[in-house]
Amino acid sequence: MNRSATSFNPCGLITLTTDFGLQDPFAGIMKGVIKRHFGDASVVDLCHAVPPFRGEIAGLWLGLCHHWFPEGTVHVAVVDPGVGTDRNIVCIQARCHAFIAPDNGLAAELVSHLDSWTAWRLDPEALDLDIASTTFHGRDIFAPVAAMLASANAAPDSLGSPDPELVPSALPRPIRKDASLTGEILFADHFGNLSTNIPGPLPKEWNDATVSVEAQTARLVRAYGEARPGETVAIFNSFGLLEIALPRASARDRRQWGPGTPVRVSKTG
Amino acid sequence: MNRSATSFNPCGLITLTTDFGLQDPFAGIMKGVIKRHFGDASVVDLCHAVPPFRGEIAGLWLGLCHHWFPEGTVHVAVVDPGVGTDRNIVCIQARCHAFIAPDNGLAAELVSHLDSWTAWRLDPEALDLDIASTTFHGRDIFAPVAAMLASANAAPDSLGSPDPELVPSALPRPIRKDASLTGEILFADHFGNLSTNIPGPLPKEWNDATVSVEAQTARLVRAYGEARPGETVAIFNSFGLLEIALPRASARDRRQWGPGTPVRVSKTG
Amino acid sequence: MNRSATSFNPCGLITLTTDFGLQDPFAGIMKGVIKRHFGDASVVDLCHAVPPFRGEIAGLWLGLCHHWFPEGTVHVAVVDPGVGTDRNIVCIQARCHAFIAPDNGLAAELVSHLDSWTAWRLDPEALDLDIASTTFHGRDIFAPVAAMLASANAAPDSLGSPDPELVPSALPRPIRKDASLTGEILFADHFGNLSTNIPGPLPKEWNDATVSVEAQTARLVRAYGEARPGETVAIFNSFGLLEIALPRASARDRRQWGPGTPVRVSKTG
Repeated sequence: MNRSATSFNPCGLITLTTDFGLQDPFAGIMKGVIKRHFGDASVVDLCHAVPPFRGEIAGLWLGLCHHWFPEGTVHVAVVDPGVGTDRNIVCIQARCHAFIAPDNGLAAELVSHLDSWTAWRLDPEALDLDIASTTFHGRDIFAPVAAMLASANAAPDSLGSPDPELVPSALPRPIRKDASLTGEILFADHFGNLSTNIPGPLPKEWNDATVSVEAQTARLVRAYGEARPGETVAIFNSFGLLEIALPRASARDRRQWGPGTPVRVSKTG
Repeated sequence: MNRSATSFNPCGLITLTTDFGLQDPFAGIMKGVIKRHFGDASVVDLCHAVPPFRGEIAGLWLGLCHHWFPEGTVHVAVVDPGVGTDRNIVCIQARCHAFIAPDNGLAAELVSHLDSWTAWRLDPEALDLDIASTTFHGRDIFAPVAAMLASANAAPDSLGSPDPELVPSALPRPIRKDASLTGEILFADHFGNLSTNIPGPLPKEWNDATVSVEAQTARLVRAYGEARPGETVAIFNSFGLLEIALPRASARDRRQWGPGTPVRVSKTG
Repeated sequence: MNRSATSFNPCGLITLTTDFGLQDPFAGIMKGVIKRHFGDASVVDLCHAVPPFRGEIAGLWLGLCHHWFPEGTVHVAVVDPGVGTDRNIVCIQARCHAFIAPDNGLAAELVSHLDSWTAWRLDPEALDLDIASTTFHGRDIFAPVAAMLASANAAPDSLGSPDPELVPSALPRPIRKDASLTGEILFADHFGNLSTNIPGPLPKEWNDATVSVEAQTARLVRAYGEARPGETVAIFNSFGLLEIALPRASARDRRQWGPGTPVRVSKTG
């Protein structure tokens, strides 16, 4: 861990990242609770379609995306299959952002993308909250705590004990060996583009590189529009991750590739 | 009906609950109309994925969830297959919350979850609204009326005539007989958990209970994480309703159960 | 083009219309960027489910729906398969609304629904923006420019050069011949209702009209509730477009009709 000395000055904005989907009122209820505790809160949905129970994907997205939000934002992540058991909830402070997340791999994945951060393990009993259910801590703990932080009614270091050991992330890391990087597909986006776990940019000394997915080569391009009809291309996407894409078509649907499919980048120049 | 004497002091917040989905601009248009009438309105989506035409499900969700929102919230529910016909629109006031809903079973289901409430039948012609279409009263009537209430430009009792007879809800009720309760599955959530119409808590004198879905027994647990691999469990969910669930898997997809499947709870201790 | 002389007085509201879906954090990230540039911005999702790459549908929806929002709203449309190539981005001002859109048919479709408007081709290099990626201009250009407009930190005419030639819309137009109009189905909504490209109202001298979809006749009704069980009806929907619908059922699922299916309206009275 790398202690962050920056203090947290909330801007009143709270983001929500969950695996709740939008089919049920769960995300809406969290907003109600936030508004009940802090009427001036501004709430933005980062995403409610994290693959069910895949906290690490939420941690990855938050780690790669939070800096697009204003300093002083409180980011709430609820992918929480262990709700009501003895799993911990943690608060992370980093780069003028605060995060509330379950300690189930999500928080560890998140901090792996931060330069400098501090964590506290929440002590819900010590906070002035209503009695929590055993099924929905997003509503009963995460939302009111986020409202307390965003309204400056609590500071991160008042929420519990510092420096907890975090449950490690199960997300696979790309492996570098000689002049090649081997990673894998992590998720498909709405367009069917397949994002890998290989972050850009490639090493500077690699003037050119070949990307292959199983036996197929994917040409590395800068813009989606550079792909020729039917051509499989590789592109560093807006997360900064290598992605496999087809022009105006879904690589997820047109190819047999999905989460876990290996992707390899080799230096060729 | 049980007359509520509380006056309504709006807090500026409006929630939307519809069966519009998010595939079309309909929910967004309602927000535009609200903002046009009341620029400082804060609008929260409770849910736009009510099963199509199932107003009672919207009434159930609002009845069980509205109290998580601040006092003074205006809740708008539009599940309205009768739009443009002679169905009524009603305003309900209860517990410092106001509701605008079509009188098609939705409103009756909602008030069945309230202790004390008053209803008025809207008289749209008497309100200062633009001429309504025959296809989208969410936009033409519900949204501007909600804005009038939320901005304190109208009080519930100014919207029409009091104490209308409400169209009854078609939602089935659980039946108690001796030491057992028989209900049924109402809907599946995003995780595939199957919510029933059986509200908790169970009678106090039932020290222990057996839950069965068709021929299968479901162990009653407190937290999802208590389920053993592959085990079917029953749990009182965050709505307060008995729910059938599988650990980190979809009971809707893995079992042949769905809306209408009977669920039985029997006293065993 | 028809020059609009009205000046643009922003009200602080920004709408988003994209083909991003809600499965990924892309729409949320745009809101973060907007809030980072203009903390008091109010952001409303018009729709994120434009059919992928179908900019013209976004242009159609914005053209038909923007007037439900307050004057001074900035509408952002990102259906942008050409991101990172040399396609242009334009700002349109019309009727006290401003629009930011890619010039790929979307903008031309939009202005075809406006009486009076002015367009400027954005010159991103001349604006004080961070270096844009080649994959997500919604985040890197559209969002900050919308924030500049909505906060009155920039006026439409300061964004670039006026009066660009717009890339035409590929959306088919209905054809009028003698006493009949022939159009086609454009899209299905969440309920499975099939919207055509035939705008209402019908010519005044047509006292009565027959609507047919392929060999089947659809009775023209005023309200969905007028349809008899199983009957295929035609109705001018809330966009003002002729729509084919079934009572409380999905015409998309129950019939073999979809985008491109011809629909004909003939004068009969």
